[in-house]
Amino acid sequence: MPRPRSRIGFLGPHATFTEQALRTLPESEDAELVPLPGNPPVLRAVREGGVDAGCVPIENSVEGAVPPVLDGLVEEPPLVIVREAVIPVRFVLLGRAGTTLAGIRSVASHGHGIAQTRGWIAAHLPEAEVRVATSTSEGAAQVARGEADAAVSSPLAAEQHGLEVLADDIADNPGAVTRFVLVTRPGTPPPPTGHDRTTLALTTENRPGSLLGLLTELAVRGIDLTRIESRPIKDRHADYWFHLDCSGHVADPAMGEALAALHRRCDRVRFLGSYPRAVGAPEPVEGVGAPAVPLHGADAAAYRAAAEWLAGVRNGEWT
Amino acid sequence: MPRPRSRIGFLGPHATFTEQALRTLPESEDAELVPLPGNPPVLRAVREGGVDAGCVPIENSVEGAVPPVLDGLVEEPPLVIVREAVIPVRFVLLGRAGTTLAGIRSVASHGHGIAQTRGWIAAHLPEAEVRVATSTSEGAAQVARGEADAAVSSPLAAEQHGLEVLADDIADNPGAVTRFVLVTRPGTPPPPTGHDRTTLALTTENRPGSLLGLLTELAVRGIDLTRIESRPIKDRHADYWFHLDCSGHVADPAMGEALAALHRRCDRVRFLGSYPRAVGAPEPVEGVGAPAVPLHGADAAAYRAAAEWLAGVRNGEWT
Amino acid sequence: MPRPRSRIGFLGPHATFTEQALRTLPESEDAELVPLPGNPPVLRAVREGGVDAGCVPIENSVEGAVPPVLDGLVEEPPLVIVREAVIPVRFVLLGRAGTTLAGIRSVASHGHGIAQTRGWIAAHLPEAEVRVATSTSEGAAQVARGEADAAVSSPLAAEQHGLEVLADDIADNPGAVTRFVLVTRPGTPPPPTGHDRTTLALTTENRPGSLLGLLTELAVRGIDLTRIESRPIKDRHADYWFHLDCSGHVADPAMGEALAALHRRCDRVRFLGSYPRAVGAPEPVEGVGAPAVPLHGADAAAYRAAAEWLAGVRNGEWT
Amino acid sequence: MPRPRSRIGFLGPHATFTEQALRTLPESEDAELVPLPGNPPVLRAVREGGVDAGCVPIENSVEGAVPPVLDGLVEEPPLVIVREAVIPVRFVLLGRAGTTLAGIRSVASHGHGIAQTRGWIAAHLPEAEVRVATSTSEGAAQVARGEADAAVSSPLAAEQHGLEVLADDIADNPGAVTRFVLVTRPGTPPPPTGHDRTTLALTTENRPGSLLGLLTELAVRGIDLTRIESRPIKDRHADYWFHLDCSGHVADPAMGEALAALHRRCDRVRFLGSYPRAVGAPEPVEGVGAPAVPLHGADAAAYRAAAEWLAGVRNGEWT
Repeated sequence: MPRPRSRIGFLGPHATFTEQALRTLPESEDAELVPLPGNPPVLRAVREGGVDAGCVPIENSVEGAVPPVLDGLVEEPPLVIVREAVIPVRFVLLGRAGTTLAGIRSVASHGHGIAQTRGWIAAHLPEAEVRVATSTSEGAAQVARGEADAAVSSPLAAEQHGLEVLADDIADNPGAVTRFVLVTRPGTPPPPTGHDRTTLALTTENRPGSLLGLLTELAVRGIDLTRIESRPIKDRHADYWFHLDCSGHVADPAMGEALAALHRRCDRVRFLGSYPRAVGAPEPVEGVGAPAVPLHGADAAAYRAAAEWLAGVRNGEWT
Repeated sequence: MPRPRSRIGFLGPHATFTEQALRTLPESEDAELVPLPGNPPVLRAVREGGVDAGCVPIENSVEGAVPPVLDGLVEEPPLVIVREAVIPVRFVLLGRAGTTLAGIRSVASHGHGIAQTRGWIAAHLPEAEVRVATSTSEGAAQVARGEADAAVSSPLAAEQHGLEVLADDIADNPGAVTRFVLVTRPGTPPPPTGHDRTTLALTTENRPGSLLGLLTELAVRGIDLTRIESRPIKDRHADYWFHLDCSGHVADPAMGEALAALHRRCDRVRFLGSYPRAVGAPEPVEGVGAPAVPLHGADAAAYRAAAEWLAGVRNGEWT
Repeated sequence: MPRPRSRIGFLGPHATFTEQALRTLPESEDAELVPLPGNPPVLRAVREGGVDAGCVPIENSVEGAVPPVLDGLVEEPPLVIVREAVIPVRFVLLGRAGTTLAGIRSVASHGHGIAQTRGWIAAHLPEAEVRVATSTSEGAAQVARGEADAAVSSPLAAEQHGLEVLADDIADNPGAVTRFVLVTRPGTPPPPTGHDRTTLALTTENRPGSLLGLLTELAVRGIDLTRIESRPIKDRHADYWFHLDCSGHVADPAMGEALAALHRRCDRVRFLGSYPRAVGAPEPVEGVGAPAVPLHGADAAAYRAAAEWLAGVRNGEWT
Repeated sequence: MPRPRSRIGFLGPHATFTEQALRTLPESEDAELVPLPGNPPVLRAVREGGVDAGCVPIENSVEGAVPPVLDGLVEEPPLVIVREAVIPVRFVLLGRAGTTLAGIRSVASHGHGIAQTRGWIAAHLPEAEVRVATSTSEGAAQVARGEADAAVSSPLAAEQHGLEVLADDIADNPGAVTRFVLVTRPGTPPPPTGHDRTTLALTTENRPGSLLGLLTELAVRGIDLTRIESRPIKDRHADYWFHLDCSGHVADPAMGEALAALHRRCDRVRFLGSYPRAVGAPEPVEGVGAPAVPLHGADAAAYRAAAEWLAGVRNGEWT
């Protein structure tokens, strides 16, 4: 009996940027790709077992983090990231054959598509009504069904929905990239590659022990940050989740010890996955936490040697 | 000749949440309130002198920071915050007289209004088309003009546009508050009240000196954080602006010395204002940086005494 | 066949302060106490196996650390402290029967006895020649043999050497105490009592990684310092051993992790023992390193919980 | 009327190591050098005005700090160091003409001379009585007067007291150097040379704020330590003076701000002088506190630029 194909959810319909990102991942090769009506439904489907994994955008080089995804990742039960992909974002304006810019009275797209082409739309379609669709591809589908005159979408959606590209490269910031992540229910993390990222979320509530103290736990172990962000905890005024992306893997001794330290000091620590860094993804930079020179003794061999020495000291077997 | 009334820009048309917040500020009392078509236009009008001040939302307890406002504040030439207001956000569904939920095929609102009522709309108006308006009040205006069937808006907009409240309190998170700030061109900051906030943005680029080092400059001087957020610097992949809200005022010796230290160590420091903390605004919390006990010697008197002692040591006048 | 009595070396002859301290320790009860001609000979005899343990002074509340003992402890092969005793130091002036102050032309004592009664001697015996003896008791022996007129010594030495107390309580600082330690060759440390001290010595040579970084490794794990001192490394100009006394026991998870971290970051770490704190010994004080409030999560239960959580995260067994 | 010659006290009689060090300093050229009977009397004479300055040993590369000098420096009224000298220490054994080693029954020297030749004396003069003199030169004087058979002293003392060198280079650690300092009553410090040292003593008592916090005040301003030592505060059990030698000068903005910070946070700060580093003196080393790379923004120009920027921000004069 053949092993059943894995099912991976993504923001549908087909031809969204998320599907485009998902198709770059090896996990998508033999999988059934399941379009779902939003990022929260993707995370919910993973949690409830309707799919084995889900692909969601987490961060954009122009807009920053994707708030509902950050907030959704820290809900219960836990989810973990097992892979990331970074893809350039190229927006086009799609319409039915024969459409002219002058004739466009409504434009549909996902909120992010609208946000990243706001300047272009204001300049070229100042009179058009702008409509929010659940995805850029759904915006294109609305055009195909005649419910809107044009859509801001991916080039792929033109083909998918039988539309024409009315204007190309219409993003206000042309070099934008979006980072997508593949999430699953918790399991053994992917093996370390030596070039990994670990994603965390922390709360400290009213415990004595500041953000500075928590960042010190990372710094003393030579761990760099690539992103930090505070997000309000819903219904708890003035309490925050701190979302962190760090260099390293939970299987590394330094990261393991740092996570254990955060577990001791924080009110809550959510391990959100250790996974290989994608090509083109943000690198650890000095400005965010990397020491100017590599920290002496942060490698696995130094941890092993120290553990052996400590064991000897504790049982008296050293001379 | 009477002094001309000051002009304050805000996201129009009238009856937006921003106007509601602005009207709670003493600066609005004798001012001409000028509706403008977006938050970036408000900031631009202040920069260009079309208005004397502008009111914009900066942070929401549910959605977090307002990205275009954070990004707009760090553009050139400089702007500073001189006041803040925190108001509860109460969303209602508005329609023309006689409209029933069953008959609603389109709903218009600002992106934030849509984001914060997404659950309610999905549950009660699953078939309705959702349209982005430039403000919640503009959404209501579209309903008044017959361009949409319903709007997610403030209660004030019903009166303003002659509409009926079809459903009240439809926000998915009922306790939400939004923090608004009044910005001007740089001038002498408002005098310290002893209960102030200072807003900053920093970049560190490739200088040796980590975020940890910068937070240490605040911590050693007893300054607490109330918010920290990294935002990508447009067109500079993997470089970030760090946006910080801190306790204290630039006129305080501790804050002055801390700002000077950041000026020395950062690539860029943007002073974004010192102003009184609003009632109901986020308080400094231990989790974000406050020491468990007040730092000894952080008050102005201790700074004065230390400066006098140092002057004596330097010129030899102590015995 | 009865187990042979253990042999413990100390600075002789009998009736020194060191013997007095040693007799307060339970280890001395059935042991043979072996007088030796100096503190370095005591450490050497322990290293070479001539005795099973040795008792030496390490710190005095007036004079500070005892340099040759600190320097001797970091020599090879390793030694560890297994016990400490703190005793008040009461100096008396001893002489043969019939001696008067006016008739004293020479006074003998150990260097520490001389240093701590310098003021009294200058005031009362300004003309007397002051001679260094290898111990305070040896000074008394010289008096008994007629080689000196008086000795600065312990009250016990009067009895031991058949001398009279010519003047009592002659220390310049009457409340002085001296801390003595019992050292052995390395073995399993004494079990933790919950009220323990750990003694360390560190060198950092030219590694990037400052003293501040090393103290941070202790502070983040809630470990307090009770003493810190830099001692030049013989023959290595401008290199130092840092001698530290810390709160806690090597068997504690916090101390174990801290020691392993120092092992990774330092050029050399010498574990010099974990042992119960004596009554009257220096307590950890805020000024030297203790946080103002106990560090959250520094106890053994928090370490255990964190280790279990980490193991689950690493092998995927959490849901 | 000619300006009176300045008077400089030192540990006498003539021909001590201290006089040798003092003669290397420019201040000694036209001065009257006044021998005094000990280091505490030298400090006292400076305090009381009997001399204008005093020269005392502060640190030895073999024995570490000189405790009575450290303790004397923090007494009242204040004294400051204005100059340092580092000289190699070469001990010789002196005797009257015709003396043989076999015939020596008593050896006199200062405690430091005895301590640093202990091994040689034990090997070559095991039977000799060792006597403490108030200085190495006084030990030689005793030999000249026939009160002792031999003295451990400087080569200079042979000439001074008409004695013969019986054995040369008898120090147990041949490369030893001693650092001497010239102290005066407080006045304007010597001008900065760009290669200066600042000496401090701090107490923290029971204030919340640890040694780590105080060292952080130095580190964030790029100031290195060259020495740290805790000395018990007399009569205050478990309280300590921390003695620090730092890189930099009180006239430097970075050092000034750091000193002011210590003044705010410590119970007591004693400024013990800023003065040029001597050739051959301990250099700041990474192990004791220097960052691996120079701290960005720690130079005087960066402080000036930051102060100007801050002034502009405070008075609103920036655009």
